[in-house]
Amino acid sequence: MASSRTHAAAEEGRGPGRGRKPQAGEAVLDRGFRLLHSFDPDHRVQSLSSLTRRTGMPRSSVLRLARKLVEIGALERLDDGNYVIGLRLLELASLAPRGHGLRAEAMPYMEDLFYVTRQHVLLAVRDGDEAMLVERLSAHAATPVRFRVGGRMPLVATGVGLVLLAHAPVDVQEQMLRDFTPREDEALVQLDSTAELRRALAEVRRGGYAVAQRTGPGGLSTVAAPVFDEGGVVAALSIVVPSTEFTPGAYVTAVRTGARAISRQLGSNG
Amino acid sequence: MASSRTHAAAEEGRGPGRGRKPQAGEAVLDRGFRLLHSFDPDHRVQSLSSLTRRTGMPRSSVLRLARKLVEIGALERLDDGNYVIGLRLLELASLAPRGHGLRAEAMPYMEDLFYVTRQHVLLAVRDGDEAMLVERLSAHAATPVRFRVGGRMPLVATGVGLVLLAHAPVDVQEQMLRDFTPREDEALVQLDSTAELRRALAEVRRGGYAVAQRTGPGGLSTVAAPVFDEGGVVAALSIVVPSTEFTPGAYVTAVRTGARAISRQLGSNG
Repeated sequence: MASSRTHAAAEEGRGPGRGRKPQAGEAVLDRGFRLLHSFDPDHRVQSLSSLTRRTGMPRSSVLRLARKLVEIGALERLDDGNYVIGLRLLELASLAPRGHGLRAEAMPYMEDLFYVTRQHVLLAVRDGDEAMLVERLSAHAATPVRFRVGGRMPLVATGVGLVLLAHAPVDVQEQMLRDFTPREDEALVQLDSTAELRRALAEVRRGGYAVAQRTGPGGLSTVAAPVFDEGGVVAALSIVVPSTEFTPGAYVTAVRTGARAISRQLGSNG
Repeated sequence: MASSRTHAAAEEGRGPGRGRKPQAGEAVLDRGFRLLHSFDPDHRVQSLSSLTRRTGMPRSSVLRLARKLVEIGALERLDDGNYVIGLRLLELASLAPRGHGLRAEAMPYMEDLFYVTRQHVLLAVRDGDEAMLVERLSAHAATPVRFRVGGRMPLVATGVGLVLLAHAPVDVQEQMLRDFTPREDEALVQLDSTAELRRALAEVRRGGYAVAQRTGPGGLSTVAAPVFDEGGVVAALSIVVPSTEFTPGAYVTAVRTGARAISRQLGSNG
């Protein structure tokens, strides 16, 4: 498993004297990925018009780029002429150490947790100031959660996010504390103030896990724990349970045990 | 769920009079993806030198492209300067209807099958003349299989592949029959002749499933069944079991039932 501490994208461009000569052609990569990024969960199938509208690029450019991306396999074109993200990207994404690589190591332990509890079992990594879901196991009957594989959530909104934030570099934590405003949505974790967030992060570091409970109809509760490799925290494992069935004791033990098992698999000596 | 019948990449370039003007910049997209495709399961972490060697592109171009791809998030750069595939590609790949979209629908039923059997449970789709694995659930103790998520196998080498081939367009089948040579590797499915392949495909269509058994030490057996949406076969579901524990009756029923449940979920009316 590769180290997962990476340079943030923004750092790459910085620094004088790198001798970088931007070339006109490189802008095509930007445009190609801008076109790919115009797909989202609400736009999984797009017409040429939709692509044109959502990218703001000229229709002729969009058509050329889309054809090229189909040729490469990054897009697929359906019989009705619409475009979808192609399988070739799944093939590439499966090689991301922080995605499928991590997932492959974690999966058997996630299966165990799922087998025993039949609740949602989640694995997430930090990407900047967001948590990205790498894997989720869910039973038919489980209360739906909004967090999907490949999706992102603010770090302060979920149990896995709190765990990842508690172990993030100091500058990321300070930024989040500075920018914190109480959320008014359905997020699983609800904190009322910066002081409360600060306290929550300290508790995660001290106790080794995060717990959040929402009461009321359809209320969900979660326990999350950090996953380590030899260099530090690389992911967070959690379980999401209807609050009416939530007994912290049992779930805290189960999640912490699972997270330790995955960490050992990743080369952490605890 | 979008229709999954797509134009093959090769078809895109065909046909005169499309008025396509290739532009110099588009070659950069090719080069960018050539760089991304130089990653594979044996090369998940690459240095600049490795990228240069494996792409055959000038080192200066590779450096420029790699920086651009890091900026976009398609690559991540580790502290030691090496490159890995980035999380951003997982985010994009999660939107592929034939990948994660299909997987999301199928997962609860795959979980059921896994829960009951504790054997490998596989879901694959056809991409040209190969089967691509979209999901695999595996217990700790399961005999290892070589087929990984995002990986590809020849259609004639696996149970899911045979099912997908049996329901592929006639020209794909004819091509495979024409090109068939007996495999000399460890593939799960071993056929000795074109006649045997033809017979196997007919049996899959008639019976509604494929069975393959390999005896000997570490021998594995498989049952695979087709998954339909409203338009036809979109995937194949299978289970892979040590041959010593294989009882066709029970597994055939389980896999076929699971495949029907997923099909219903995808809008097939059976």
